Amino acid sequence: MHEITFAVLGTGGIGRRALEVSQHKAALTPVAACDRHGVALDADGLAVEELLAATEGNIDSGLDDVATDGGDTATSGGSGVKQHGTQRGVVASEQAVATDEPIQAIIDAGAEIDAVLLALPNYEHDFIPRTADRFIEAGYSGVLIDVLKRSRVIGMLEDRRDALEDAGITFICGAGATPGFLTGAAALAAHSFVEVESVDIWWGVGLKSGYEDNRGTVREDIAHLPGYDIETARDLADADIEAIIDDHDGVLEFEDMEHADDVLLERAGICDAADVTVGGILDVRSDEKPTTTTVSVTGRTFDGERATNTFELGDETSMEANVNGPALGYLKAGVRRNRNGEYGVFGPAELLPRF
Amino acid sequence: MHEITFAVLGTGGIGRRALEVSQHKAALTPVAACDRHGVALDADGLAVEELLAATEGNIDSGLDDVATDGGDTATSGGSGVKQHGTQRGVVASEQAVATDEPIQAIIDAGAEIDAVLLALPNYEHDFIPRTADRFIEAGYSGVLIDVLKRSRVIGMLEDRRDALEDAGITFICGAGATPGFLTGAAALAAHSFVEVESVDIWWGVGLKSGYEDNRGTVREDIAHLPGYDIETARDLADADIEAIIDDHDGVLEFEDMEHADDVLLERAGICDAADVTVGGILDVRSDEKPTTTTVSVTGRTFDGERATNTFELGDETSMEANVNGPALGYLKAGVRRNRNGEYGVFGPAELLPRF
Repeated sequence: MHEITFAVLGTGGIGRRALEVSQHKAALTPVAACDRHGVALDADGLAVEELLAATEGNIDSGLDDVATDGGDTATSGGSGVKQHGTQRGVVASEQAVATDEPIQAIIDAGAEIDAVLLALPNYEHDFIPRTADRFIEAGYSGVLIDVLKRSRVIGMLEDRRDALEDAGITFICGAGATPGFLTGAAALAAHSFVEVESVDIWWGVGLKSGYEDNRGTVREDIAHLPGYDIETARDLADADIEAIIDDHDGVLEFEDMEHADDVLLERAGICDAADVTVGGILDVRSDEKPTTTTVSVTGRTFDGERATNTFELGDETSMEANVNGPALGYLKAGVRRNRNGEYGVFGPAELLPRF
Repeated sequence: MHEITFAVLGTGGIGRRALEVSQHKAALTPVAACDRHGVALDADGLAVEELLAATEGNIDSGLDDVATDGGDTATSGGSGVKQHGTQRGVVASEQAVATDEPIQAIIDAGAEIDAVLLALPNYEHDFIPRTADRFIEAGYSGVLIDVLKRSRVIGMLEDRRDALEDAGITFICGAGATPGFLTGAAALAAHSFVEVESVDIWWGVGLKSGYEDNRGTVREDIAHLPGYDIETARDLADADIEAIIDDHDGVLEFEDMEHADDVLLERAGICDAADVTVGGILDVRSDEKPTTTTVSVTGRTFDGERATNTFELGDETSMEANVNGPALGYLKAGVRRNRNGEYGVFGPAELLPRF
């Protein structure tokens, strides 16, 4: 497979880690990175170390990065944005230039970009779909890949299938850890069975040292807590989030989360969405995982047995490692599909062999 | 994806189970089955129940099924072949006709066959490659997929890459349980790591009720025991095999087996072949697995941690379930590649997303 060039949309925690992780794979060359303040472009490959160093501590959230034109940065962690005089976010890098149209800048260089990673937490249900619209309208042809979490977003992307196919875009959705890595693990584990009865995904994340870089993710997780939703979580001030964390002594437990693993596994024909459950424990005051991330797939074999196959992640693997490796792996698989003329919307499980 | 038609070459344990398992998936239609005695063909789909019932107890080994023209059946379990007067093997089915050229019969119907599963244990190193040659020479264009085990065979297939590409054949090799299912699990588990240090595959098989149907597989496993090799195992009479089993009280333990998981993972860029170890325990006197089948992938994350991800198969899943589900899943993935014009040789890990 030829070398792959890619861009990251958003230079918060996920975007910066994707750039860093890609440095370990020769076949992956990051050629662009942007946030709402500007864009860094280099067809020969970005100098990732400089960009990461210059934007270190940049916790300008995914939302403000690109989703809204302007908007109150303070409402989503923007107060921590790296400032160099008037320079904010990616513009702090000497490779970047300021622009009000970062996405357009990426699209203008689209011929040299095989894939664009939408490294943005998404609070608004239709944020990722609207971002897809902007790429469609601007004439981008290639791979778009996101790490979205919410089940309801998949249907919004499905509504755009024809437009994506006409544009020659292969959209890979939900390609992070969960959904993503663990969705794929469930699809693979299902091969023992002629009927999958249940898929249980249980994750553990210790985020002490990564908390500053992942406030957007924590905010999005809080939206899964009883009494909160995407809108209310989005409007929380940092102080509110700190208060919620204090109330839980730093350990947030989630049950029956709305994670797209369910609809993505159903799309792939693995099982019914109703048979998939996702939950987990987030500890923002320790790097130790509060529980072992496990995928359990229970099914019936052709010869009448009932069994459970399990996939466990080592407790020493960080959330960042389990999001970015899979995201880049799915990105590469998406580029293969795109180069073969397979356009439209695909979930992680659809990129795996399936029985 | 459109419906897929496939043929099975060999109606021993693996071939018959593949036909049975495929009945659980609407997208898979078996249209042909053959052994060295004859062939059953029906473009609308074989009546699998009749064929299985008619050939029940057929333990004519994979080798004698097709590999050799004639040959002494008694040397590889042929003594148990179903006999209907002069009818042997698949010809016992009312859907089958006797022929001396079963492979040619399959190839003549090749336009209606998307994939051919080579459901044959392979004792001779070059048996699968030679079978590939026969399909190439006869002008077949489609997917060939095998469940071979030996590392050395992969190189022989790689030597035929150009011929396979010219013929329009997508050859999927080592697509059973191990290599196959567990190779894919290792490739997926590797996504957490920027460097994989080791892959340890450990399998457990309880084969009491499946022993008669899987003598070919047992014979091939014996070739992995100290003091035996492919040639000596192939020449063992059934009585010799029984004696070996008795000597081990029915429980055979294997270490450092020559399983192609190693070269298949290296081909896919997951790790070096030398970092892969395969072993396991076979109990032919109990259906209970003597040990839990586990894949352990140890590596280093981008952020400097060292960890082990693990994939475990439920003890209640049979060898047949873990061979045939994955084989048919990889078959479907191979057909997708073939329809996209991707020809040549692919291992299981190459059909998965890879970071």
